[in-house]
Amino acid sequence: MANVSSSRWDDQIAVPEVVVGRLPQYVRVLRELLSDGVQVANSQQLGQQLQVTPAQIRKDLSYFGRFGKQGRGYSVVRLLDELQQILGLNQQWNVVVIGVGRLGRAILSYPGFTPDGFHIVAALDNNPSLIGQEVEEVMVRPVEDLDLVVKEQNITIAVVAVPVGFTQQVIDKLVTCGIRAILNYAPSSPQVPDTVKIRSIDPVLSLQSMTYYLTNGGE
Amino acid sequence: MANVSSSRWDDQIAVPEVVVGRLPQYVRVLRELLSDGVQVANSQQLGQQLQVTPAQIRKDLSYFGRFGKQGRGYSVVRLLDELQQILGLNQQWNVVVIGVGRLGRAILSYPGFTPDGFHIVAALDNNPSLIGQEVEEVMVRPVEDLDLVVKEQNITIAVVAVPVGFTQQVIDKLVTCGIRAILNYAPSSPQVPDTVKIRSIDPVLSLQSMTYYLTNGGE
Repeated sequence: MANVSSSRWDDQIAVPEVVVGRLPQYVRVLRELLSDGVQVANSQQLGQQLQVTPAQIRKDLSYFGRFGKQGRGYSVVRLLDELQQILGLNQQWNVVVIGVGRLGRAILSYPGFTPDGFHIVAALDNNPSLIGQEVEEVMVRPVEDLDLVVKEQNITIAVVAVPVGFTQQVIDKLVTCGIRAILNYAPSSPQVPDTVKIRSIDPVLSLQSMTYYLTNGGE
Repeated sequence: MANVSSSRWDDQIAVPEVVVGRLPQYVRVLRELLSDGVQVANSQQLGQQLQVTPAQIRKDLSYFGRFGKQGRGYSVVRLLDELQQILGLNQQWNVVVIGVGRLGRAILSYPGFTPDGFHIVAALDNNPSLIGQEVEEVMVRPVEDLDLVVKEQNITIAVVAVPVGFTQQVIDKLVTCGIRAILNYAPSSPQVPDTVKIRSIDPVLSLQSMTYYLTNGGE
């Protein structure tokens, strides 16, 4: 499950994937603190927001150097800036959506991507009746154009919203075209090479975090 | 963000929602350990799997009483059983899927729900051409039947896979019919009363956990 890889040939310590996965949540909390006017926060305060022990926070951040002075807390604006830099959130990422059905359209119209630097610049489908249509100011193009579109528009990230039976073949094609980060909406576990990162929406973990409340009565 | 609620009128300490959200991941790790033949695990070993400090694990578990003996570790089978009981995972949950488009069909055919006790027993849509069809052995019924279906089949959980523009109205209807746990696939943030739990698929957090690898070169 957790992929604790250590790079033996490298001086740098590899950061465990689960630690990287927690950083975006730290970014969210820091942004909230900043918009609340908080300038300095210690690991206790950060931990409270995420219900994580202060030691866990210090350990996670220690992979990336020293951010705070002992006993003085972190500068919210500096820590936020550094984490955004580490995660590559202060730049623009061009994204292609594959599959312009119901879900694909919902993704294209989602307002939450752009403020975080994710720009959907292309949409592909294999349905001839969709090709040439404009959806949310993006022209739908045929899947065959993938390689061309990726190169033309400098795309590095793909969101896959195709029927589950087509997922693996679409993802294989994305990998061939040089895409290195894939968000897969189908409830499935496609295979990718080690050089490519993939996140699949996992409905079971979400359901399991709610049955607690059904089991233990109203809150 | 994190909802640290404390119940003032109650003897019991309310468990923070983020802690509950971590328990399903503990369950996964314990299941893996069990299938690997591991019988006893300490918080160090559990923590290693999830890259969480042993103190964090002990703190999370402390909300639910004492599971292990100091220095002896946890019995994997007992801890797993207790956590499954706490989360309500050792019982069957009847689930309705609303929306039988591409995504709804993918959800209906996902093999991962049943082994974890989530049984999709009903599927609803408002498209007349779908009503009466059988999808994965479930007969599609009209959305108007929701109240009836929920009562007939003792349904407590809903998965919503409708176009984003319909999400809020469908969720309002689910709440009225007594559904108390909702998994929303649309990239949106619908409103529900405090008595209802909702999890929306959050694509941005997933994307943000991958840009790290794009920024910091191939791994």
